[in-house]
Amino acid sequence: MVMKKFINDPKNLTPELLEGFALSYPDKVSVVSEKIVVRANKKPKDKVALVTLGGSGHEPALSGYVGDGMLDASVVGDIFAAPGAPNVLEALRMFKDHAGVLLIILNHAGDVMNGNMAFDMAVKEGINVRKILTYDDIAPGTAAPKEDRRGLGGCMPLFKIAGAAADEGKSLDEIVAIAERFNERMSTLAVTMKTATHPQSGQYIATLPDDQMEIGMGQHGEGGGTGPQPLASADVIAETMVEKLIAAAEVKSGDSVLLIINGSGATTLMEMLIVFRKAYKVLESKGIKVAYSRCEEMLTVQEAAGFQMILAPVDAKQLGYLKAPSNAPYWVTR
Amino acid sequence: MVMKKFINDPKNLTPELLEGFALSYPDKVSVVSEKIVVRANKKPKDKVALVTLGGSGHEPALSGYVGDGMLDASVVGDIFAAPGAPNVLEALRMFKDHAGVLLIILNHAGDVMNGNMAFDMAVKEGINVRKILTYDDIAPGTAAPKEDRRGLGGCMPLFKIAGAAADEGKSLDEIVAIAERFNERMSTLAVTMKTATHPQSGQYIATLPDDQMEIGMGQHGEGGGTGPQPLASADVIAETMVEKLIAAAEVKSGDSVLLIINGSGATTLMEMLIVFRKAYKVLESKGIKVAYSRCEEMLTVQEAAGFQMILAPVDAKQLGYLKAPSNAPYWVTR
Repeated sequence: MVMKKFINDPKNLTPELLEGFALSYPDKVSVVSEKIVVRANKKPKDKVALVTLGGSGHEPALSGYVGDGMLDASVVGDIFAAPGAPNVLEALRMFKDHAGVLLIILNHAGDVMNGNMAFDMAVKEGINVRKILTYDDIAPGTAAPKEDRRGLGGCMPLFKIAGAAADEGKSLDEIVAIAERFNERMSTLAVTMKTATHPQSGQYIATLPDDQMEIGMGQHGEGGGTGPQPLASADVIAETMVEKLIAAAEVKSGDSVLLIINGSGATTLMEMLIVFRKAYKVLESKGIKVAYSRCEEMLTVQEAAGFQMILAPVDAKQLGYLKAPSNAPYWVTR
Repeated sequence: MVMKKFINDPKNLTPELLEGFALSYPDKVSVVSEKIVVRANKKPKDKVALVTLGGSGHEPALSGYVGDGMLDASVVGDIFAAPGAPNVLEALRMFKDHAGVLLIILNHAGDVMNGNMAFDMAVKEGINVRKILTYDDIAPGTAAPKEDRRGLGGCMPLFKIAGAAADEGKSLDEIVAIAERFNERMSTLAVTMKTATHPQSGQYIATLPDDQMEIGMGQHGEGGGTGPQPLASADVIAETMVEKLIAAAEVKSGDSVLLIINGSGATTLMEMLIVFRKAYKVLESKGIKVAYSRCEEMLTVQEAAGFQMILAPVDAKQLGYLKAPSNAPYWVTR
């Protein structure tokens, strides 16, 4: 099979995309040490800095969310691969003279291993750093241990909430509390209809029969527990997913929620809006108010057809943080 | 072939996606008469309103750009189909008491026919309306008559420039002059590697052999003149396209330009950034300064793999209009 992608030598994907990113938004971001995306306008030292890490190939995540009111640095690995601990440590050191550093780690084995290693080294060096693990995937069930729940697209609103709190001048401990409060109940479920091609190997990252989809598939083709199932209409899929998310996030009549449809790649905004519509109506029918919403591609899986649905309860304070301005290249202030 | 899309009854795609759009961004947009997307916050009557029209299936275009500083109304047709003249007339009438109305028509046969018909009727009714036709596709060559050049993604920066001028309080004649000045030289070229499925018929909208791509293919699968050609690297494609655009837009050393990579659907942001990088370097090597840039999906073609590259000269005034704030749901202020 010929790979139909606009690329050059597959081993240069990450440096080339990062170069393109910095050239596209030179007033907003720059790339240091080849692997670390930082804000063009540095944060004042009396405030807490936010750092995250993750493999490339999921653009705009995670580096597209570096900017005022969101992340201070994103440490980038190769395609679908965690960056090395030394790179993460280098990013943490950049902010050693700030009011503190919050390291946000998405729950994937490589990210956790290298993120934790860098964290431990930073602590030993006396850097005032704390960490948060995101584990929003509800596919294995919320009773599953945190370690079994992947970090999916819920990290983006978490970056926004923690970033706005940091900009407001909150202390590191306060920001950890604010972020963990959102983290505890944010719930994400993915569905995939067509999987993607790994841009380096040219191989499909998973397989799905022509008449099947999978709810719960991870963003690298990891299984979702329930396995493939027959295709269904947008309304049936949306209702099935939002019901599971309502239960997982423990939201009920009278609650206000955030609802995000995050496209995987080849699924059109047309489809995302149709899915959003049904999920909204199910929530509305239960007396749950959608107070904050987005439909767009945030964390993608190459040209996979599918989406992640993200649901979380939000209070007035969290809503204020979500709506606060940000100039991150791919965060539209809404 | 089973269609792998998240949809319900294909005949309800447009009303369902519009309903989802209005529910997603209730503070920003609403849908009136089932087919017209308008701003939630109406523009003061002492200013000129901007109206456009076009088929759905290209989301976020065109309705995603309704908002402060951009469009006042977008009249929506069914999938890949122009809206009817009566709907366009209804939208023009909404602004009859404003300081004027500018109707922006993308050059596609149905849009031109129905747009012109509504325009003529509005003039007869005494509405102070003027129109602009966009024809940025350079695939047939810039020597081709305007009628042969399709209206592609260049309309989005044009909406932004004209919309910012309208917000500033410019007169209808002034806005037409400002928009036409940008329109005359804005140049777009598309490339397609994989075509898309029509979400109502389930059929591919065009065919391309596994080892071929087509430069110049239109957004409904229309031929590009030169026909399919062998796949090439991102750098070769980017260089070929930007060279043609430089010639068409008549930009030269010392000029400042806008450069946009608009993804068609399944092409990842990773790829768009890699393509942007090369186009930027070609421009830089010729002494042409990229003063404004975006890489994102603006006008899509379902799950097609490909992109449109948009190039236009910009002066300081146009740059100011491009960077002016907008709250349109899918326009990130950059």
